[in-house]
Amino acid sequence: MPSVDLNADMGESFGPWNMGDDESLLKIITSANIACGFHAGDPDVMAKTMTAADDNDVGIGAHPGFPDLQGFGRRNMKVPHDTLRNLVRYQLGAAMGMAKAVGTKVRHLKLHGALANMCSVDIDMARACYQGALDVDPDIIVMVLAVTKQEEAVRDLGCKWVGEIFADRAYNDDGTLVDRSLPGAVIHDPELAGPRMLNMVREGAIITESGKRLETSIDTICLHGDGPTAVQIARSVRENLIAGGVEVTKFTR
Amino acid sequence: MPSVDLNADMGESFGPWNMGDDESLLKIITSANIACGFHAGDPDVMAKTMTAADDNDVGIGAHPGFPDLQGFGRRNMKVPHDTLRNLVRYQLGAAMGMAKAVGTKVRHLKLHGALANMCSVDIDMARACYQGALDVDPDIIVMVLAVTKQEEAVRDLGCKWVGEIFADRAYNDDGTLVDRSLPGAVIHDPELAGPRMLNMVREGAIITESGKRLETSIDTICLHGDGPTAVQIARSVRENLIAGGVEVTKFTR
Amino acid sequence: MPSVDLNADMGESFGPWNMGDDESLLKIITSANIACGFHAGDPDVMAKTMTAADDNDVGIGAHPGFPDLQGFGRRNMKVPHDTLRNLVRYQLGAAMGMAKAVGTKVRHLKLHGALANMCSVDIDMARACYQGALDVDPDIIVMVLAVTKQEEAVRDLGCKWVGEIFADRAYNDDGTLVDRSLPGAVIHDPELAGPRMLNMVREGAIITESGKRLETSIDTICLHGDGPTAVQIARSVRENLIAGGVEVTKFTR
Amino acid sequence: MPSVDLNADMGESFGPWNMGDDESLLKIITSANIACGFHAGDPDVMAKTMTAADDNDVGIGAHPGFPDLQGFGRRNMKVPHDTLRNLVRYQLGAAMGMAKAVGTKVRHLKLHGALANMCSVDIDMARACYQGALDVDPDIIVMVLAVTKQEEAVRDLGCKWVGEIFADRAYNDDGTLVDRSLPGAVIHDPELAGPRMLNMVREGAIITESGKRLETSIDTICLHGDGPTAVQIARSVRENLIAGGVEVTKFTR
Repeated sequence: MPSVDLNADMGESFGPWNMGDDESLLKIITSANIACGFHAGDPDVMAKTMTAADDNDVGIGAHPGFPDLQGFGRRNMKVPHDTLRNLVRYQLGAAMGMAKAVGTKVRHLKLHGALANMCSVDIDMARACYQGALDVDPDIIVMVLAVTKQEEAVRDLGCKWVGEIFADRAYNDDGTLVDRSLPGAVIHDPELAGPRMLNMVREGAIITESGKRLETSIDTICLHGDGPTAVQIARSVRENLIAGGVEVTKFTR
Repeated sequence: MPSVDLNADMGESFGPWNMGDDESLLKIITSANIACGFHAGDPDVMAKTMTAADDNDVGIGAHPGFPDLQGFGRRNMKVPHDTLRNLVRYQLGAAMGMAKAVGTKVRHLKLHGALANMCSVDIDMARACYQGALDVDPDIIVMVLAVTKQEEAVRDLGCKWVGEIFADRAYNDDGTLVDRSLPGAVIHDPELAGPRMLNMVREGAIITESGKRLETSIDTICLHGDGPTAVQIARSVRENLIAGGVEVTKFTR
Repeated sequence: MPSVDLNADMGESFGPWNMGDDESLLKIITSANIACGFHAGDPDVMAKTMTAADDNDVGIGAHPGFPDLQGFGRRNMKVPHDTLRNLVRYQLGAAMGMAKAVGTKVRHLKLHGALANMCSVDIDMARACYQGALDVDPDIIVMVLAVTKQEEAVRDLGCKWVGEIFADRAYNDDGTLVDRSLPGAVIHDPELAGPRMLNMVREGAIITESGKRLETSIDTICLHGDGPTAVQIARSVRENLIAGGVEVTKFTR
Repeated sequence: MPSVDLNADMGESFGPWNMGDDESLLKIITSANIACGFHAGDPDVMAKTMTAADDNDVGIGAHPGFPDLQGFGRRNMKVPHDTLRNLVRYQLGAAMGMAKAVGTKVRHLKLHGALANMCSVDIDMARACYQGALDVDPDIIVMVLAVTKQEEAVRDLGCKWVGEIFADRAYNDDGTLVDRSLPGAVIHDPELAGPRMLNMVREGAIITESGKRLETSIDTICLHGDGPTAVQIARSVRENLIAGGVEVTKFTR
């Protein structure tokens, strides 16, 4: 029986400001990428989110980003590789400490926002970040954007990893995402998103806009927590997968 | 043969700004309290400082403080106990991650600045902070200001701890420090500081300004890294102790 | 015809995080206290909020707070008076620059959160903050909590000022607020809040819980933007005042 | 009699951390570019630095940078133009408020670090930043790197401006700086820097490494405050200019 993991970003509140509907998503997903305080999240939010994830038997991941709260880690920054390595070490360490404190543990690591985007096209940046994570925990499972430089980097490093695809984004034939400014780039319709994901998981391949198959390891599907239809899309994906005979469960490595 | 540890705050640079003469002090001390990024220190500084401490066989401690960079963690803040607990967990976790990454480990924890001062007179605050540290590592050695509420808190918690006294501060008969505004409160003369510390370590007691003996566990002596005579005082203390037959070595528990 | 101003805190979003229903409140209030980036708000939020306030003919105020984003400026901090003075100067200057840039101007200043609370019981702190504001603009109108040390401070300084009362808080006989933990301390019922404010404005006095009259200058009423019934309370106050023959209009000095 | 201004970055301390020898440089320069709190500087440092500049009859400039304290504003960030405009408005406003408070005024604006570098090759970015400054003060004098996109931007905007060259950097024939990694790119020798600047000011042209003349408006020379020979270079430039019959004085427009 084929199986797949569902992941989403979590714990993106900060101080008095709330973001996302973590409670609803925790009923749907199997892995949570938890902000580590640099682009979002604070120690209180981390403690609360990790506890809630654990209560829902959702796997916990560290989700480090650039030190840019106002920009939510979505603004490209040119940071030396040594500094990248250290900021991943720091954020992963903080997440591991917090997880330990609330009685659980960090299983995986996924990069956030602009840091993730830059690493998906720059293998040296990706390697610096992932090396930082492995320095802290050689058993950490690195979650990468499938068929990008992120995947190349983890293959080079020889570490544990899982590949992810997006539930709500259309793909070009070279595996890159269709530019957000083009029609059809972002899938807003839950009726469409669910069957599409079932299809890709069954095929073991990304199906591009033109219909081309890009074979890859689809270990996890990224669901978004924001946007008006986010939770419906998430539910639709989960229900379609299960109805189609795919087990929705935490990845293992 | 009696023995004592010498500790100092380290890694208090931030970004482009340097602070302290860490290199010189690392030749003198046996334990380093390393800033964790909230009041000073950043991931690069932490990595560098921990590596240097380890190279000098100096024990590594996490030194969490209030989230107040401009105030260097020296301004009192009224923070709920749950938040205190979480901010200690976060900072200790970050320090442990970084230590692991550079091939060493965090042995102890000491609170910084205003957080330390407030906890030395408020046992509930102290307990919240120390509990946060123990949540992350039940074997961490907590460094406390001897004969204060910090000491009461660790006794209550039943955790591993060591007691410290200041090399350069005069004491009142109740164990509190003589107010900085009074003459003689701060000892600037290396000739004075060294013999004074030797005396207290031999006696196993704080000798107050009036000459009274307060018996306590003098496991470690706090040396300061700033001030014009800081490094000389540190050297004088070390040399006087050794000349007086006291072994200067990392504490164990 | 008696008149009164209605004020509320605004522009408390930050980066990707939204807070409050500024759009609705701007239809009700006559003065907006706009966060200046230290406890909430960022340059983009400030520009947008000031533009919206001006479009609604709502008077603009700078609303400086402690440099504590995670704590939303609600945590007491012990800050030297010189630093208080400078942080008010800085935040007011930033607000004035932004107001000029979007074609309007800052008319008043009101302290935020813990800074305001501390200044309502410490005249020297209040004086330091207000002096900082007057250093930048001697014509600024300082909005103070009536019958507190804030009011004493502006009387001493001899500057322009207006006194405010809270729409949703009960008062003790000495003019302090009834502790939030006591029943009736916070008024959640719009039906109650409106007539109550009309009564106080007509009387020119705070009516305490026991029914005592504290005569004072009620120039403006503070409405809150958060809480489930906040906007309804705000509307009820406005409607009751108008129905009762009180003009709701920006204060002048 | 030809004249020229000498400028340097100032007020780059932060909280407990000192940077630069502002006191010495203030005896040499005629214009100070003062950090505004985003990449360096804090309200206390700004107040102190502006007071000292004014006491030395040195012209005051706002020196806004990216919001990146750890990176000292030296890391490229990809920030939307509207946000750039607002962050310059905010920082200039804060500087103007502080200047007013200490009895002086802001005469000019110069961009810092990575923000300046990016604007020297991207006219749209430069225009967004300078427009933000002009929104706050239409009479502000914008200090630009001569013969770069910064200069093109101010010519387009039609605002007051002055052109600057570097005392300690070699130039390529296209007006760009010789890459720091190449020999001779940075001039460390005070004996060399002084006569070189005198020559360029007399010629009214940048003299490139190959000896080519690039005619431009040399209104001000940028001196650096850091590096082992910084103050000597600064003195040498000043002395050579004066000895060579050039008046060293604040620019006017």
